[in-house]
Amino acid sequence: MKTAVIGASGYAGEELVRLLLSHPQVDLTAVTSRQFAGQTVAQIFPRFFHHQKAQTLKFSDFNPKQLAAMAEIVFLALPHGLAAEFTQPLWEAGVRVIDLSADFRLRDPHIYKEFYGQAHPAPDLLGQAVYGLPEIYRKKICAAQLVACPGCYPTSILLPLLPLVRKKIIDLRRIIVTSLSGVTGAGRKVETDYLFAECNESMRPYGVPKHRHLSEIEQELSIAANEPVVMQFTPHLVPLNRGIISTISLDLASNPDIGLIFNHAYANEPFVRLLGEERLPDTKDVVGTNFIDLGWKVDQRTNRLIVMSAIDNLTKGTSGQAVQCFNLMSGFDETAGLL
Amino acid sequence: MKTAVIGASGYAGEELVRLLLSHPQVDLTAVTSRQFAGQTVAQIFPRFFHHQKAQTLKFSDFNPKQLAAMAEIVFLALPHGLAAEFTQPLWEAGVRVIDLSADFRLRDPHIYKEFYGQAHPAPDLLGQAVYGLPEIYRKKICAAQLVACPGCYPTSILLPLLPLVRKKIIDLRRIIVTSLSGVTGAGRKVETDYLFAECNESMRPYGVPKHRHLSEIEQELSIAANEPVVMQFTPHLVPLNRGIISTISLDLASNPDIGLIFNHAYANEPFVRLLGEERLPDTKDVVGTNFIDLGWKVDQRTNRLIVMSAIDNLTKGTSGQAVQCFNLMSGFDETAGLL
Amino acid sequence: MKTAVIGASGYAGEELVRLLLSHPQVDLTAVTSRQFAGQTVAQIFPRFFHHQKAQTLKFSDFNPKQLAAMAEIVFLALPHGLAAEFTQPLWEAGVRVIDLSADFRLRDPHIYKEFYGQAHPAPDLLGQAVYGLPEIYRKKICAAQLVACPGCYPTSILLPLLPLVRKKIIDLRRIIVTSLSGVTGAGRKVETDYLFAECNESMRPYGVPKHRHLSEIEQELSIAANEPVVMQFTPHLVPLNRGIISTISLDLASNPDIGLIFNHAYANEPFVRLLGEERLPDTKDVVGTNFIDLGWKVDQRTNRLIVMSAIDNLTKGTSGQAVQCFNLMSGFDETAGLL
Amino acid sequence: MKTAVIGASGYAGEELVRLLLSHPQVDLTAVTSRQFAGQTVAQIFPRFFHHQKAQTLKFSDFNPKQLAAMAEIVFLALPHGLAAEFTQPLWEAGVRVIDLSADFRLRDPHIYKEFYGQAHPAPDLLGQAVYGLPEIYRKKICAAQLVACPGCYPTSILLPLLPLVRKKIIDLRRIIVTSLSGVTGAGRKVETDYLFAECNESMRPYGVPKHRHLSEIEQELSIAANEPVVMQFTPHLVPLNRGIISTISLDLASNPDIGLIFNHAYANEPFVRLLGEERLPDTKDVVGTNFIDLGWKVDQRTNRLIVMSAIDNLTKGTSGQAVQCFNLMSGFDETAGLL
Repeated sequence: MKTAVIGASGYAGEELVRLLLSHPQVDLTAVTSRQFAGQTVAQIFPRFFHHQKAQTLKFSDFNPKQLAAMAEIVFLALPHGLAAEFTQPLWEAGVRVIDLSADFRLRDPHIYKEFYGQAHPAPDLLGQAVYGLPEIYRKKICAAQLVACPGCYPTSILLPLLPLVRKKIIDLRRIIVTSLSGVTGAGRKVETDYLFAECNESMRPYGVPKHRHLSEIEQELSIAANEPVVMQFTPHLVPLNRGIISTISLDLASNPDIGLIFNHAYANEPFVRLLGEERLPDTKDVVGTNFIDLGWKVDQRTNRLIVMSAIDNLTKGTSGQAVQCFNLMSGFDETAGLL
Repeated sequence: MKTAVIGASGYAGEELVRLLLSHPQVDLTAVTSRQFAGQTVAQIFPRFFHHQKAQTLKFSDFNPKQLAAMAEIVFLALPHGLAAEFTQPLWEAGVRVIDLSADFRLRDPHIYKEFYGQAHPAPDLLGQAVYGLPEIYRKKICAAQLVACPGCYPTSILLPLLPLVRKKIIDLRRIIVTSLSGVTGAGRKVETDYLFAECNESMRPYGVPKHRHLSEIEQELSIAANEPVVMQFTPHLVPLNRGIISTISLDLASNPDIGLIFNHAYANEPFVRLLGEERLPDTKDVVGTNFIDLGWKVDQRTNRLIVMSAIDNLTKGTSGQAVQCFNLMSGFDETAGLL
Repeated sequence: MKTAVIGASGYAGEELVRLLLSHPQVDLTAVTSRQFAGQTVAQIFPRFFHHQKAQTLKFSDFNPKQLAAMAEIVFLALPHGLAAEFTQPLWEAGVRVIDLSADFRLRDPHIYKEFYGQAHPAPDLLGQAVYGLPEIYRKKICAAQLVACPGCYPTSILLPLLPLVRKKIIDLRRIIVTSLSGVTGAGRKVETDYLFAECNESMRPYGVPKHRHLSEIEQELSIAANEPVVMQFTPHLVPLNRGIISTISLDLASNPDIGLIFNHAYANEPFVRLLGEERLPDTKDVVGTNFIDLGWKVDQRTNRLIVMSAIDNLTKGTSGQAVQCFNLMSGFDETAGLL
Repeated sequence: MKTAVIGASGYAGEELVRLLLSHPQVDLTAVTSRQFAGQTVAQIFPRFFHHQKAQTLKFSDFNPKQLAAMAEIVFLALPHGLAAEFTQPLWEAGVRVIDLSADFRLRDPHIYKEFYGQAHPAPDLLGQAVYGLPEIYRKKICAAQLVACPGCYPTSILLPLLPLVRKKIIDLRRIIVTSLSGVTGAGRKVETDYLFAECNESMRPYGVPKHRHLSEIEQELSIAANEPVVMQFTPHLVPLNRGIISTISLDLASNPDIGLIFNHAYANEPFVRLLGEERLPDTKDVVGTNFIDLGWKVDQRTNRLIVMSAIDNLTKGTSGQAVQCFNLMSGFDETAGLL
């Protein structure tokens, strides 16, 4: 399958390149980066030096039209706004697009504007995009021309929450989520806040109280609940490279068998690992993998359910999930290149 | 002031020694450690090598009776259970005791047994102890013979919560706290879980849903509310040496001026720094200090108040606060040796 | 190929299990650990939870005789001394053994005693062992019944040095090596020195001036030089999980083309990546891989050659190299399960 | 003593501000930063929030002439080149200057050009500057109008080396130094190389073979030896915030008592701690302090002496040493504000 990555110079792009170089059914035909155009993948990412392809494939500055002739499926790892601009011509050329940005995750352009501070650059396409969470939208992803991959926080929050919301066992007005993220979650942003000595031996909440990812989380929860859901979300920056822990506090509305619900939802999912009530997740068990680990505890004292998830923000949180979608779209084994 | 530290070999003990060696009014007459008896403080803690006192003072294995003759105020940095055993004879000898363990924090021995799994070893003394949170119990601490220093999590949670509870502006049934702690919070425990490679590049919730510190937090909240308070608390282990972030989600019961409440409570407190609604706390700003930094945000979408605190778990969370109590008990300036 | 791992509970054992679970031609029939006997691999190492085999295979406490009936090739990840005790009966049963300990690396039992402080427990077998550095002893490894895998420091030092020693272009009396190692290099030792808060934000030299690994490094250099070589070696402990940098200062005895020598030695080696004079190695490019990255610079001011290598101490430094040997012994592709 | 800091926004500047805010005899009258002009010190560095002065003192963009009227001693924490431009007018106004840059460390402007790639901007002043290593140039520093503070690597290397060079006990042609530095050593440079995720879980040599600091190290060694000295120096970047380890390999030219030499040189120095042959330095023992810890071992096998030093690169390596010089220049106790 001829494939290209647009905007391959950030952490998500680099992780995509890592996965695609090793994918048994992928022919990586182009990687673009304005900054690195003309240099080989091996020069920019020395960890891939041993791949024959990495030594020959050069970063380019191709435009969408050129890329449309080179790839059947194109990954976009661009900032929001810019991603939509690239998507339009690719869409028109009939190329299938997997977009890692936020541009096509929201169905309502007004919410896009509210959370991203600018008018949506391609509102006509919003109705075409499928939200790229395979455990929820598998069938639609298979047939999609445009997949909008979820953010890393949403993945870590929606997978534990959606089965519970659907079963109507929790109080929808009292969803309190606290997340902890490694620093690659911010992308390869060259800003003082992300310098080593500013992050190391530091922890800090940020984006309080209205982080952008809230918009897509609440959208998906509302769809599942069939009523509007508004929740609390407080993310924190923590000094490690990769990983997200989301800890979700829920008021139980009934007294169900939580394990049964999760097993029913996920027992056959290749990338969801249910830890049960006895074990708690740890990011070090998922780093570098496409797994999400889910643990939970019922607190008898408060009648609350605490659900905790762990993912690698760059793999299941971004690029691994994108490849999972790619596999579905291509008719490959869903786990190809991911185990 | 002649002073001794019992059980000086852990992280809390080492931090106490650090603070007391530099305290202008302290004569450190004894430090005990079964493990290190006979060796100088400088040999065991090379960072104190330049202190004349550290080169001459040797760790001893003195018993309480011997210590009673050597010190007017004794710090106990011992495991719970053992601390109470040491306290009894010191109390009887009229020595003033500042206990860093959990042994005298709880007023009710049944709750002690529920949370610590053993009968309280000295229940008669429970009524004598003052909870060592100077911002709340300053006057009582000044006169106390026995001070029970709060745990690190309780300090980071109670200081933000107590003024709000007293003002009755929050829904007491909906206090949701998530905390992140550096690894010294576990003490110098030589266990696999705390090895470098088990903690580095790892984050994990633990102690869910009933961490021991809940007992003292709920006790103090209940006293302030004048009714029983039960809350949610989920701590996490995070890869840094020192620091705690506590993020507290609260349902507002009225629409008060939060800044006014905090200012009223803490404007004159030497170790509480109010960041207001514009800035969020970061542990790197408090590490090595006795400060607690408090920030907050009202979420208009949910009518919730998010309060976030940062402390150094070994300083304001343990040993610095103990020295703050010591200063009060001794009639010294409350900040002596702490700025 | 039926394979077993003895002593699978340490970091090297865990890395072996990781590699063998994914190896296309391996049937892992037994993993032993006194401590974990009766528990599944998935229970002890949750990161392998998704492997069917990890969920069924239990740690056992089998003795060598039992293991001889279960595996054609056995990996030993045991402490030195104990490894030799296990090897003897396996050898006698005709089983092929890949030993990760130091027990069979040295040809001379007196040097073993000098560096390891005890008489060699199986001196008769010393002559049978092949030093498991495939780039140097590939042919012998293919046919060996007993392979002694090199230490992590020796791997990082010998691969850069041996081609230069053989070409006689350096002054053999003036080899100065400084190495930096991540903390897993010490193994999963539950000792105070390796606690998170003792290693994080700390760097320190150790094992000065006579680290145990010197014995095997000097042995192999002396063989290559055909004369006794004594060198300087100073290792340092550095706060990261995995990785070794070795920086080697050499007095040039002639003025050769260094790139030509390294290319001649390693151009076709699948796991040696030559960075040349323009790029310097970085451990983050090799972590999790079996590669060694080599860079070098000639200092015209001093007429010295500085060679720098980077490896993952647990992969090319230990378990990856063991699997590389295993592939050679089994007639598999040398890179099977390692790319 | 009225004092100002020019260029206070980097790590060295921030550390200077930390030390000067707490210094008992300093009146900090101005801090400049083009970037932060108009904001208070407390706004930019929240860790100093509790200092009354930090809440009132604003960053300014004053020029040298203005500063000359405001301070008797001025610290310059500017990039090289720019520092010299600021020094000239301050010098002419009779103000005493402590420069933390490299601009006045070298006596020979040709060597400045060779190592810094530009002509020296104020060669006339070179002869006026005193190299700010108090243990070596104490008397001259007391009287100096212009002090050029040494670099962090030079401090960690010169203090162990100079007594040995003076005693002529080592082979001057065979000085091999390897250094490990925390990331603040690079300054608060907003570049990709210093992002958290590029440094964490990474180690790498850099600046091989001709790091800029070589110039001043060799200058000072040559002065002490009374003959030209050329040495080998390989620095490494290591994932911690603060600290330098320098490991120095020396060929012994005679068989002296090393402890005696170091004691003779440093026994009365307030900031040199001699660890002797039994203990090795660890950066965690010096972080946040102005100490240099020195340990050493003679290797009988090679007749080499290995000397190892540890400093905090921002304190004894930069700003602490600058304050030590300031104390000497001002006639204060040399340790004022530093213990």
